[in-house]
Order: sequence, then C-alpha cells, then structure tokens
Amino acid sequence: MTDDRFHVYDTTLRDGAQQEGLNLTVTDKLAIARHLDDLGVGFIEGGWPGANPKDTEFFRRALTELDLKHAQLAAFGATRRAGVKAADDPLVAALRESGAPVVTLVAKSHDRHVELALRTTLDENLAMIRDTVTHLRENGQRVFVDAEHFFDGYRSNPAYAVEVVRAAAEAGASVIALCDTNGGMLPDELADVVHEVIGASSARLGIHCHDDTGCAVANTLAAVKAGVTHVQGCANGYGERSGNANLFTVVANLQLKRGFDLVPPESLAEMTRIAHAVSEVTNVTPNQHQPYVGMSAFAHKAGLHASAVKVDPGLYQHIDPAEVGNDMRMLVSDMAGRASVELKGKELGYDLSGDRAKLTELTDRVKEMEARGYTFEAADASFELLLRETVEGERRRHFDVESWRVIVERRPDGELVSEATVKLHAKGERIIATGEGNGPVNALDKALRLALERLYPELASMELYDYKVRILELGRMGTGAVTRVLQGTTDGKAEWNTVGVDENIIEASWQALEQAVTYGLLRAGHTLDA
Amino acid sequence: MTDDRFHVYDTTLRDGAQQEGLNLTVTDKLAIARHLDDLGVGFIEGGWPGANPKDTEFFRRALTELDLKHAQLAAFGATRRAGVKAADDPLVAALRESGAPVVTLVAKSHDRHVELALRTTLDENLAMIRDTVTHLRENGQRVFVDAEHFFDGYRSNPAYAVEVVRAAAEAGASVIALCDTNGGMLPDELADVVHEVIGASSARLGIHCHDDTGCAVANTLAAVKAGVTHVQGCANGYGERSGNANLFTVVANLQLKRGFDLVPPESLAEMTRIAHAVSEVTNVTPNQHQPYVGMSAFAHKAGLHASAVKVDPGLYQHIDPAEVGNDMRMLVSDMAGRASVELKGKELGYDLSGDRAKLTELTDRVKEMEARGYTFEAADASFELLLRETVEGERRRHFDVESWRVIVERRPDGELVSEATVKLHAKGERIIATGEGNGPVNALDKALRLALERLYPELASMELYDYKVRILELGRMGTGAVTRVLQGTTDGKAEWNTVGVDENIIEASWQALEQAVTYGLLRAGHTLDA
Repeated sequence: MTDDRFHVYDTTLRDGAQQEGLNLTVTDKLAIARHLDDLGVGFIEGGWPGANPKDTEFFRRALTELDLKHAQLAAFGATRRAGVKAADDPLVAALRESGAPVVTLVAKSHDRHVELALRTTLDENLAMIRDTVTHLRENGQRVFVDAEHFFDGYRSNPAYAVEVVRAAAEAGASVIALCDTNGGMLPDELADVVHEVIGASSARLGIHCHDDTGCAVANTLAAVKAGVTHVQGCANGYGERSGNANLFTVVANLQLKRGFDLVPPESLAEMTRIAHAVSEVTNVTPNQHQPYVGMSAFAHKAGLHASAVKVDPGLYQHIDPAEVGNDMRMLVSDMAGRASVELKGKELGYDLSGDRAKLTELTDRVKEMEARGYTFEAADASFELLLRETVEGERRRHFDVESWRVIVERRPDGELVSEATVKLHAKGERIIATGEGNGPVNALDKALRLALERLYPELASMELYDYKVRILELGRMGTGAVTRVLQGTTDGKAEWNTVGVDENIIEASWQALEQAVTYGLLRAGHTLDA
Repeated sequence: MTDDRFHVYDTTLRDGAQQEGLNLTVTDKLAIARHLDDLGVGFIEGGWPGANPKDTEFFRRALTELDLKHAQLAAFGATRRAGVKAADDPLVAALRESGAPVVTLVAKSHDRHVELALRTTLDENLAMIRDTVTHLRENGQRVFVDAEHFFDGYRSNPAYAVEVVRAAAEAGASVIALCDTNGGMLPDELADVVHEVIGASSARLGIHCHDDTGCAVANTLAAVKAGVTHVQGCANGYGERSGNANLFTVVANLQLKRGFDLVPPESLAEMTRIAHAVSEVTNVTPNQHQPYVGMSAFAHKAGLHASAVKVDPGLYQHIDPAEVGNDMRMLVSDMAGRASVELKGKELGYDLSGDRAKLTELTDRVKEMEARGYTFEAADASFELLLRETVEGERRRHFDVESWRVIVERRPDGELVSEATVKLHAKGERIIATGEGNGPVNALDKALRLALERLYPELASMELYDYKVRILELGRMGTGAVTRVLQGTTDGKAEWNTVGVDENIIEASWQALEQAVTYGLLRAGHTLDA
C-alpha cells in the first residue's frame, strides 16, 4: 500500500468469517491473506487477537509467515471495558502486542446499544473510545474506529452518534468507519447521513455495509460519492446473514467505472482467479452469478445475440471480461443457433467456420438432444465429445461396453447392498469387473474404473465430485418421467462436466459416467481408436 | 391487480429462464406463475409465444389451467421485422393470438444495435415500433415496450434513445421500460438518465435492471425515486449472467422501507415460503444468504448479544422477519420448537397438548431427522405417520417387508431392463411379487402394489404423480452424498407427499414409496395392525 489517499480494507478474516457454516483454520486465514495481498488490497483485518486463541495464533504466525507485498495487517478489537484504564485491560493489551501496525477498534455509536448491550453511560462510552485510541496511538499503532450500528444510532440520536465520531478523531483515530451493522440502509438515505456527518466533523470517514437490503455494494458506492475515502468489504461477499459488501465488486466498480486507481491493473486481471482460489480455501461453493468474477458473469445464452456478438462483443458486455480475468462464454442451449455453436467450438479449440455442413449437423444434434432433456451449457465435456464425434464422422472409443448390471438389494437381515458388474472390450481384451458401492451409481462407477484401471492407470486419480439429478417433465408421469444427470469429475488439476438423460436414472447416470471417463482419458493423452 | 398506479412486473418465466442451467418445462412455468400470483405481483411475463413451441404451449395451457387472482399475463415478443406490415408478421400474429391481455414488445433503442443486430435503419426501427404497437392496440391488447440497451444507447445517441421512447408512447404503449440490458450501470448515473428522459418525454416509464455491477436492486430503487412507476425483476434474482433485479428484494425494500403498498401484507408474509417453493420448481439450490428470504437472512450468532436481543430484537434486525415470513434464528433447530409441532399436529387432527412427554419426543425426532436431511414441510404424510408412530408408541403396519431387490441391466443386445422383487407379509400371508418398469423406482412401485393389490384393491386407484430428487451436502463426496426423495401420490381425490433420505437413492425412494402406500391405505380406512 503506497497510496494512503483511498483505503481498500478487507475484513474477510474477521467479519466474513461470521458467515454461517464458514470455519477457517489459521492456515486457511494465512492462505486467504496471501490471495488478498496478491489482489492488492491496502489492509487485511486478520481477526480479534485476545478474544480467541485462533486469532491470537494468526497474528503470531503472520509475523514470520506472511510476507505481504501491498497490504498492512489490522488487528480488530473493542474499546476498553467500562471503569478500567486502557493500559490495564487485557484485551487491549492483546491488540497492543499483536504486532499489527493497525488496530481497528469497534465502538458503540448507538445510544440504546451503549445502554442495553454495553450497560454503561453515554459519557463513559466516549471516555472508553478516547482512552483506548490514545493508548494505542502512544504505542505507535495506527488506529481506525468502526462506529458500530452508526446509521441506526444516527436515527435514534444523531448528536451522540456524531459525538462518537468526533471523540475518536480527536483522540487520534485516522479513520472512522461508519457501520451499517444491521444492514438495513438504502443508498439515498445512507448518502444523506454521510453528507451530514462530513458537514459536522472533520474526521476522515470510511464505510462498512451489509447486504440485508441487497444494496451493500450500492451503499458503499453512495458513501464514496458522499466523501468517504475508506471502503470495507469481504471477498466474495462473505459475512453474517446476507453477507458483507462484496469487496471484489466494489473494487471493480470503482476502478473500471469510476476511474479510481485502487489496485494494479495486472492484479485486477487476477481477480477471477483469486475469487475462486479463496472459495477453495473456504470450501464455499463459488457463486456462479457473482458480478465480474462468477463463472456465469459473462455467459451468454440467447441465440438472438450470438451473431451480433461476433461483430462487436462490446455491444453485449458492460466491460471487457479480461480486465477482471474472466472470459466471455457462449452457452449452447435450445435457444442457440449455429453462431453460438461455432463460437463455443472456437472456445474449445475447434474451428468450424470452414465447414457449414458439419456446423449445421452439430447444431441440429444439439437442438434435438436438448429437446430430449440434455443440457450442454452445464456439460462442456459432453459437448466436446459430441463435437468430435460430428467432426470425425463416427464415434470413436477407448472401450466398448458389452453389458452392465446393477443390483440393489435390501436383505432380510436389513443389510443394504449395491453391486454392479460391467463387461467391456478394451485394447483387444474382454474384461469383466464387479464393484460394490453405497448406491447404484457409486457401484457402477467403481466397476467401470476397476475394469479399466489396469489398462489406463490415470483413472486412479479421477474422482466424481458432483452429481445432480433432475426429473424433467413433471406432472402426471411419476417415476416414468425423464431423468437428467449432471456429473462433475476431476483429476485434481481440472474439472469437467458430463450429462446423461434417460427415463431410467441408472442409464442416465451410466451415460454421464462413460463420457466422464472418456473425456478424462482424452485429457490424459489417450487418442481414440476408430 | 386492482391498482394500476405502480406495476410490479415479473419476468422470471422469460428473462429469468435465461439463467445458466435453468431449464423450465411448461408445467414448471405454470407452477411458478401460481406462486407469483400468490405473492400478489401485478404482471407475469410468460414467455415468447411463436418464438419457441414451449412458450406457445404455455400460453395455450394458461388459458384453461391458470386461474390468476391478482396478476395479468404478459406475452413477450419483438416488434415486426423490417419491411413488412405488423399485420403480416407471423411472430406478431403469435402475440396477437396468445390470449394474453398484455403484450411486452422489445424494441431496440441503441443506434448501433439497430444497425448491427437488427440491420436496418434508425427510421425503419421507429416505424417498426409505431406500427407494431398500433396494431396490437387495435387488437385490444395493452402494450408495454422494453427499450433494450436503453442506457448504453442513451450514452451513444441520447436523442435517438429518447425518440424511441416517444414513438412507443405516441403509438399507444402504456409503459416504456428502460432496460439496462448489459447490466453495467451504477445507481447515480442511471438515476440521472431517468431524470433526463422524464424531462424529455411524457411517457410513463418502467425499469429493467441486471446485476452485473451488483447494483440491480439499488438501480431499480434509484429509478423509482427518479420517477418510474413500473419495476421489472425476477424471483430469487434469476437471470442471465449475474441475474436480473431480485423482485423479492425490490418489493420488500419498497414496501417495508419506502411505504409503497405493492402486495397485501399477508402475501408479503408468504414471501419466504414462495421463494423456496419457486426454488423447488427450478431445482436451483436456494441462496441461503438472499436478503429477506434466505435461510441465513436473520440468523444471528448468539453469545455476546443474546441478552440485548432478548430485551429488544429490533436492535439487531433491520426489520421484523415475520413481515416476510422468515424467522430470526438463534437456535440450531430448523422446525422451531414444540409449539410448532403441536400446532402442526392440531392441524392434522391430533391434540398433543395434554402429553408433554410425547410432544417432546416427537419434536426431538423431527429435529434429529431434519438434521439428517429429511424435510417435513413438504411431506405432510410422512409427518403424520411419524406422529402416529410416536403417539401409539410403536410402529404399526399394514404389511411387513422381508426384503426387496432391484436389478437394472443393459443387456448385450442393448435392451435395458429394470426389474424389482418384493417379499412381504400381510394379513398372515407371505407374498412375493416381481414388477418390471422403465426404471428402478417404477419397477419397485409396481412390485409393491402387485404384492398388495389382491388384499387391498384400493391400491389400483393410487398413482405416483410427482417424484423429486435432491442431492444434499454436495462437495467432495460424489455419489456418496445423501439423496432426498420427495414423492407425490394421489388417489384421484386427494394428494399426499412423502419423503425418504439415504445415501442410496433406491433406498430413499423405497422409504417414500412405502410411506405413500401406508398413508393411502389409512386414507382408504384400513386401520393399522400392531
């Protein structure tokens, strides 16, 4: 962080970690901090040292293990307790001794919260703020103050809320972040309050928003327009309830649409990768629709537009996706025509522009199969196999299946058994293999790999990681309806998706399995026999 | 829709259906329309009749199958092609003949799009708009116009963009919705444009936003503040790329925070249920963090604030969650406590108030089973069987299953065979029956009925009409994840729903089947043997 004029302050490791179901280890936190530093944020709030052992350890390990290029670490904590000196409060001591160059103190700014949650007087709360800020400043740390419940507090008692801001600034806090802690604000009203506070105090202000009205990003932008120069948010919009302001969206909006120079352009071009890398650490499924960095953020479905997209992609995109490291994706769907099939082929490395007949044949097959329930937009690998089959004029295979059988049985003793047998021909051999599993598809998967693993050892590293079932054409058809199975497979380096459709769920799963294995073997470099 | 002064216009079935991975059948669309009508939206855009057979069928079936209480149906379509009369354009004819009282015409308002995508002149585009609007108005339909790419168009050629609005209004369109088709706008700039257009035309304006900057909701609110009186959006924020404006969030914000009277308060209190019901139809996992209606939207970590929350929950919530039918969650359990189990029992005709022990036992079982993936909200019959079992102190049955076995086989000649055998005891007999079906569950269903039909002839009139599968706890578990099956059964007079959960999909289906048959026999008056 070389430029102090505008702060990008990340609180993923503290407020983001409050998200339901999110549970970060110290190692996770260190990994996320490195990703955020790669993006170029100015401040990384690491947690609350002293309040829990994990966060204390994070700051201890950060001293030796984190080598931050841009960011400074901030330790979060509360003002001293009522009735003691800051110097004597063990929680303040933990902040002082955290080794963090910045301390962010949370302070109550809503009169009712002071009385009901803190159970002290309004004056003592001000003294707690002044005393704690002064003490940490004397210790050589920079101090930011999070004015908690600020906007609700301003509604309840504007004079007191402003007094909190003044007290913090006068004691030496360099930023006072106004927090919409309950997340209920809308942008116009929030901007009005920021304007009024800027008029009533000379403090440097920041903003901290939650997404309970779906306006966290817009609220942050409104506050910036009103004059704040410090924005807080979380990677991927993590946070309690509906989440915090998504820092990625805020940064992209400010930098690409408002001309702010917040992170190096080459780091912004890493944002999509970084967003996904953070998801890997948190183990939260990435939001496919996340602005800028989601897998679908630049995915186009409507066939109508594909021809114009070819002429000028800018007509259908609000920015060039490369600026945030994302890609335009054409989805192949029943709404698509030849133009989008051609573009999709190009994306996968096949130039179909020279062969109108093949392109038409492929488009017709896609449409016909989608009418029967297949969906290729979520199954790139199946689409690529279909494309190759069409281009090569015949179906080539690594193996030929003679038959398979699945038995699921509940025995008289209550035991449940799933067993599958696959008979196939590969490399001139006839192979029979039987697998057991915790369900019919798992058993089939095991039998198929068992049959092939000796000939194709790469199969050992492939794993089925996602399996989705959808019954199509519900209504009066019951179990006779068509079943679509979407399957995700990984070899640890890449992931690919395949689709199967049949009225029989086992057959649909088999189709997806067979394609997943075929695609994996192609990736591993095994060419196809005619 | 009794009040025309402000329009809540839903486009889930058209623009929302563009979401990657979303693939709605006609039956799905009818079901979603009913849910939206329950919420009280004013208009439901059903699709593009004439452009694809599915949407044509939707409007045909809607005429007889949809009995809307509040909403009017809108048919979406394009202005006539260049160089033909509206009366002679077959796509315009499909709109005219759709039976929809409202037609929403998409019109180009960006000069470059007219030239590059439509490949016609700016004047002809205006003529196409005037001609098509006039023609449909003469046919007695109300016409709205979606001004596509309006904001980008306004940036490129403001005079022309405004001319499009004027032309549409003068021809008789009652609303012109300004569309941020590429979704790149931020609220301040969008509001400025809306202000200017309102100053330059007397047309009634609407707004249609996408979430590519994370500001779709805020953009919609900004446009309303600037003077539009018609808002478009989608259930759960579905839509292409990052999605459309989330209509649920927009309605809740306007009604609860801006004093608009958009839907009846008792319908607003159904919003959480409706949001989840729509997810069931689309089979898109509900966004847990969705504002207002997400499962986490009012979830609080206890501890620190618990005492203050007890004194005044409003200190930690931006609204009372009951207003949108959601709940504050401080406890672990989903289905709340004994009170709601007691209430549910009463609803089914069982008075549990006199037996606290049984009530506690039942509540504990419900909680324990829901933790394992069961859901009783959508499976009343399963809940009632569980209740009876608890009240009666033991499991009573019409039949005792000894074992079952399912075989699914693809034979060397390519034939696919599904066969199930059930062995059971009923009325003192041991019965073995084998059924064939088009899949494993269908075969099991047939075998079970075959085994019981001689003893219970009523089974002949029972039919499985709905079967849904959801894989829970996805992640790195692949086919080992837990599978939940929800099944709907009917005897022609009533319908009932049962649930089964197991890592094995066949076992989960069996549980739901067995309960469905048991419940059906109870309905038919067969008491249970101990």
